Amino acid sequence: MSLDQAERTLRLLKATPGWTTLCAARPDCDLETAGAILDAARKMAEDTLSALGPRADEQGCRLEEGRVKTPDGYRQAWTAYAEGGWLALDLPEEFGGSGLPLTLQAAMLPLCERHATAFMMAAGATRAAAHLLAEHADRETADTWVPRLASGEWAATICISEPDAGSDVGRIRMRAEQTGDGWSVTGEKIWISFGDHDLVARIGHCVLARSEDRHGTRGLSLFLVPSTRACGSSNGITIQRLEEKMGMHGSPTCAMAFETSEAILIGERGRGLPQLFTMIELMRLQTGCQGLGIATMACEIAEAYAEERRQGGRPDAGPVVIAHHPDVARMLSEMRSETEALRAAVLEMAITLDLSRIDGRDSDAAALAAFLLPLIKNFGAAAGAAVADIGIQVLGGAGYTKEWPLEQGVRDARVLTIYEGTTGMQALDLLIRRLWADRRGLDVFLTRARAETENRPEARTIIEAFAELADAMAAHAGEPGALYGANAYLNAAWRAFKAWMAPRLDPAEAAPLLAQGREYMALLRAQALAGTNALTEAENRGRKLA
Amino acid sequence: MSLDQAERTLRLLKATPGWTTLCAARPDCDLETAGAILDAARKMAEDTLSALGPRADEQGCRLEEGRVKTPDGYRQAWTAYAEGGWLALDLPEEFGGSGLPLTLQAAMLPLCERHATAFMMAAGATRAAAHLLAEHADRETADTWVPRLASGEWAATICISEPDAGSDVGRIRMRAEQTGDGWSVTGEKIWISFGDHDLVARIGHCVLARSEDRHGTRGLSLFLVPSTRACGSSNGITIQRLEEKMGMHGSPTCAMAFETSEAILIGERGRGLPQLFTMIELMRLQTGCQGLGIATMACEIAEAYAEERRQGGRPDAGPVVIAHHPDVARMLSEMRSETEALRAAVLEMAITLDLSRIDGRDSDAAALAAFLLPLIKNFGAAAGAAVADIGIQVLGGAGYTKEWPLEQGVRDARVLTIYEGTTGMQALDLLIRRLWADRRGLDVFLTRARAETENRPEARTIIEAFAELADAMAAHAGEPGALYGANAYLNAAWRAFKAWMAPRLDPAEAAPLLAQGREYMALLRAQALAGTNALTEAENRGRKLA
Repeated sequence: MSLDQAERTLRLLKATPGWTTLCAARPDCDLETAGAILDAARKMAEDTLSALGPRADEQGCRLEEGRVKTPDGYRQAWTAYAEGGWLALDLPEEFGGSGLPLTLQAAMLPLCERHATAFMMAAGATRAAAHLLAEHADRETADTWVPRLASGEWAATICISEPDAGSDVGRIRMRAEQTGDGWSVTGEKIWISFGDHDLVARIGHCVLARSEDRHGTRGLSLFLVPSTRACGSSNGITIQRLEEKMGMHGSPTCAMAFETSEAILIGERGRGLPQLFTMIELMRLQTGCQGLGIATMACEIAEAYAEERRQGGRPDAGPVVIAHHPDVARMLSEMRSETEALRAAVLEMAITLDLSRIDGRDSDAAALAAFLLPLIKNFGAAAGAAVADIGIQVLGGAGYTKEWPLEQGVRDARVLTIYEGTTGMQALDLLIRRLWADRRGLDVFLTRARAETENRPEARTIIEAFAELADAMAAHAGEPGALYGANAYLNAAWRAFKAWMAPRLDPAEAAPLLAQGREYMALLRAQALAGTNALTEAENRGRKLA
Repeated sequence: MSLDQAERTLRLLKATPGWTTLCAARPDCDLETAGAILDAARKMAEDTLSALGPRADEQGCRLEEGRVKTPDGYRQAWTAYAEGGWLALDLPEEFGGSGLPLTLQAAMLPLCERHATAFMMAAGATRAAAHLLAEHADRETADTWVPRLASGEWAATICISEPDAGSDVGRIRMRAEQTGDGWSVTGEKIWISFGDHDLVARIGHCVLARSEDRHGTRGLSLFLVPSTRACGSSNGITIQRLEEKMGMHGSPTCAMAFETSEAILIGERGRGLPQLFTMIELMRLQTGCQGLGIATMACEIAEAYAEERRQGGRPDAGPVVIAHHPDVARMLSEMRSETEALRAAVLEMAITLDLSRIDGRDSDAAALAAFLLPLIKNFGAAAGAAVADIGIQVLGGAGYTKEWPLEQGVRDARVLTIYEGTTGMQALDLLIRRLWADRRGLDVFLTRARAETENRPEARTIIEAFAELADAMAAHAGEPGALYGANAYLNAAWRAFKAWMAPRLDPAEAAPLLAQGREYMALLRAQALAGTNALTEAENRGRKLA
C-alpha cells in the first residue's frame, strides 16, 4: 500500500519477461537507468506539475484576439519539462533526443499524467509529431523541425477530424492543392488539442487532407502545416473557437480554419493515414498512460482518506477507519487491482513496441503490439474514469467537492474513451483487423499468456475462455450480427489481458482480476455471440460485409 | 421511440396491476386525472424549468453577506411551481393540499427533474418536510407550517450530517437543550441542500439533535428550527460556506452553524430518526425520480442525435445515420431499456406506498415498499449517471462539450448514489434489515414477481436465481464475510426487479433487461457469496455481528 508510483513501476518492470529481453538487446536499458529516470520524473512532476492540474481546471484556456492563452504556470512548466529533456527521451540522438527505449518514456509518463493530464496533451502531441517527422519527413523538414520539437522550442498538433468527418476519417474534405513549388491546404479541422497556445514560437500541424481525386482514406495525404510561414508571417490559420468541455479545461480544444495555408507534404501521396499511424500509435499509448495516471491519483487519495476517516462501529466505542468497512475495502481493492493491472499492461505494451522496433515489422512483437494497442487505448481510458469514479464513492460527499481532485479526474478522464478513436472504433479494430483479417497477434498473445500462467489455473481459465470466444467470433467473420458483439469481445480480451498480467502482481492485487473468472467470461461470451444468434445464420451470410 | 415522457408514464401506469387496485380504492385516481396532471406538468416544465437547468449550472449559487443568492429565474420558477399547486399535490386537503395519491406526484416529478434537477431539490425538501410535519408535529406547529410550505410561502430543509457524522447518524453531536418553554439547538450541520436561499421569507430546518443522554440514534430527537424567530429576528443560524461541487451547481449545499437556535420538538423525544423516516422515504423516492429525469433527458437527446448525425458507410456513397451503426444501436437500446425499466419500477414503488397507506403499516404493501425503497433509491441514482454517461459516448466529442446537457447530467447525477444514503448503506439496508431481520417484503416481492412473469421464462429465470441467492445469503445471516457481498446482492435484487417489470414494457425495451439473465445472475451470485467463502464458516460464525 505504501509503495509510490515509481516503486510500483520498477517492481512491475522486473516482473515483465520482455524487460529482460529488452535489456539484453539494448545496453542503454537497465533497472538502474529506469530507476534514475523514474526518480527524476517523480521529482519534476511533484515540483513542477502538481500545482498545475487543479489551477488549470479552474482557470481554463482563453481565446484573446485570436490567440489562445494558457493557464498560469504553463510556460514555466513547459520550459522545465523541455529543459529536463522529457520531450526527447526516446527520440533519435541525431535529432537531439536521448535515444532511450520507448519503455522508459511510457514508464515515466504516468507520473506526470497523474498531476496534470491536460497540460501533458501539449507535450504528448509534440513528442509524437517529432517521431512522425523523424520517420516520414524529407531530410530537410526533419532537420528543421525534429530538433526544435525535441527541445520544446516549437510544438505540434495532430489534425484529423472535421465537422462531417469524426470517426469516419475517409470523409475528410480539407483540400490539398499543389502550388508552384509546394502545397497548400484549405478547410476546417475540429477537436484540435493545443491548436494554438502561448508556450512556443511556432506550431506545426500534422494534417490529413485530400490531395487525390479518390474517395475514402486513399485520397488522403499527410502535411505539415506551420502556424507561421518561414518569413514569420501568418499562414492563413484562424482559431474559430475553443470548445467548452466537461473537463480537460487546461487543454485548449480548437476549431480551426485553414485558408490556402502553406503545407509540406510528408512522405508519400495517398499514404497519409497509414503514415500518420506512427503518431496515432504513440498517442493511443499515451491515452493508456493518462488513464493510468488518473487511476493512480485516485487510488492514492482514496487509500489515504480511508485510513484517516473514521465512521461506524459500536455507538458506545470510538469510530473505526472506513478502510475496514467491508464495502469500502471492496472498492479500494477493485481500484488498486484495476490500476496495477493497467500499469503492468502498459509496460508490456511499451516493451513489445520496443522489441518490435528491434525485431522488425514482420515480427511476433509487431503483431502482438497491434493486438494490444486497442486494449491499452480503451481500457486505460476506461480504468481512469472508473477508478476515479469509485474514488468519489469512497470519499462520499467530500469526493463530490472540488476540495479533492477526484471529481476533476472523472471529468478529465471522460474524454479518453472518445478521442484517439472511440471505444466503438477500438472494438471494431480488434474484431475486424486483429481477428477476422489477421489473427497472428492474437495467437502470439495466447502463446505468451498461456506460458506465463501455466501454474495459475484461475488465470488460465480466463485465457482459455477468451481463446474459445475468439474462435467462435472468427467463425462468424464478416457477419453483420457479429458487430453487435464487438464491444463484449473487446471486454473479454481485456479480461484475458489482465489474467495474463496477474502473476506479475502481488497476490492481493491479482485476486480481484481473477475472481469469478468463469462467470465473467460466460457472460461476455453470451453477449458477444448474441448478435450472431439473433440474426439467423442464413441472413448473416447473405448480408456479409463488403 | 417517438413517445414523450408523459405518454410513456401513462402507458406504464396502465400496465401496472397495482394501479387498477389504487383506482378502485380511491375515486380521485383514474387515468384521465393522471393524463391531465402529466399534461399540465409537462407544459409547466417546458415553459418554466427548461431554461433553468443549464443557466443554473453556469451561474451557480453565491454566498453574499451571509445569505445565499440563487441563479436567475429561480424566484419566478419557484412562484410558478408553487402557484401551480405542485408542492401540495399529495398533501392533505386540511393543510391546503390537493390530497391526491403519491403516485400522481411521483409520475409528474421526473418531467420536472428532467429539466432542472438542482432547482427541484428546493421543492423536494419543502414538500417532504410538509408531509413530515403533517404527520408528526403538534397541531399548532402543523397548522402554522404545513399550509405555508404547501403554498411555497415558506420552505424547508433536512439537516442530518455533521463533520464527524455522515453515514454514521448515531454519532450526531448537535446538542438540544430545554429552555423555559421549549428547546434550543447548538452545533454544526453540513451538506444541507438549500440551507439558505432567496426564494421565500422563512425556512424551517428539520434537524436531528441529541436531546437524551444516550449513545447512538436513540439519543436523537427531531426538531423544527426556523431560520427566523417568530418576531422576525435572527435565530442564531450562520451559513459558514457553500460547497464547490462537481455538479448540482444550482443547488446551494450549505455548511451551517446553529447557536442556541430556538427549536420546536417534533413528535417524541428519542424517536427523531424513525420519525424523520417519513421525510427520508419521500426523498429517497425523489432520488429515483431525479435519476429517471436525467436518464430520460439523455435518451431523448441521444436518440434524436443518432437519427440526425451521419457517419460511415461506403466511402463512395452518402454516410448513414449513426443510429444504424451496430454499436450505437446497442448503446441506445441499453439506455432506453434501463430508463423505461426504472420508470416502471418508480411507478410500482409509488403505487405500493399509496396502497400501504390504505392497507396500513402491517400490510403486504408496507413490507414490499420497505424492500423496494433501497432499490429505487440506488438504481434510480445509478441509472441516471450511467445512462447520461452512455449518452455522452453516443454523441462522441460533442457529448463532452457544454453544447449538450449530457455532461451536466453526468455531473449532476454523480451525487445521487451518495446523498440520501450511499450505495453501501442501501446495500446493508437490503441485506440486514430486509433479509436477515425481516424477509416479509422479499417474500411479497417474489410472490408478485412470479405471478406477473408466469409465462415469461426469461424473466422467471432471473427471479428464481435471485430467490435462490437470497436463501443462500440468509443462511449466512450475521456473518462478517457476507457483508462483502451486500453490493452484489443489491445488484441481483435490482436485476430481479427489472425482470419483474419486463412484461410491462414493449418487447424491444424489455429484451436487454432479460438478455444473458442466467449468466448475469451466476456472476452476481458468485460475487455475493465470495466473502462468506473466503472466511471459513467457523470464522464467520465466531465473528457474528452484534
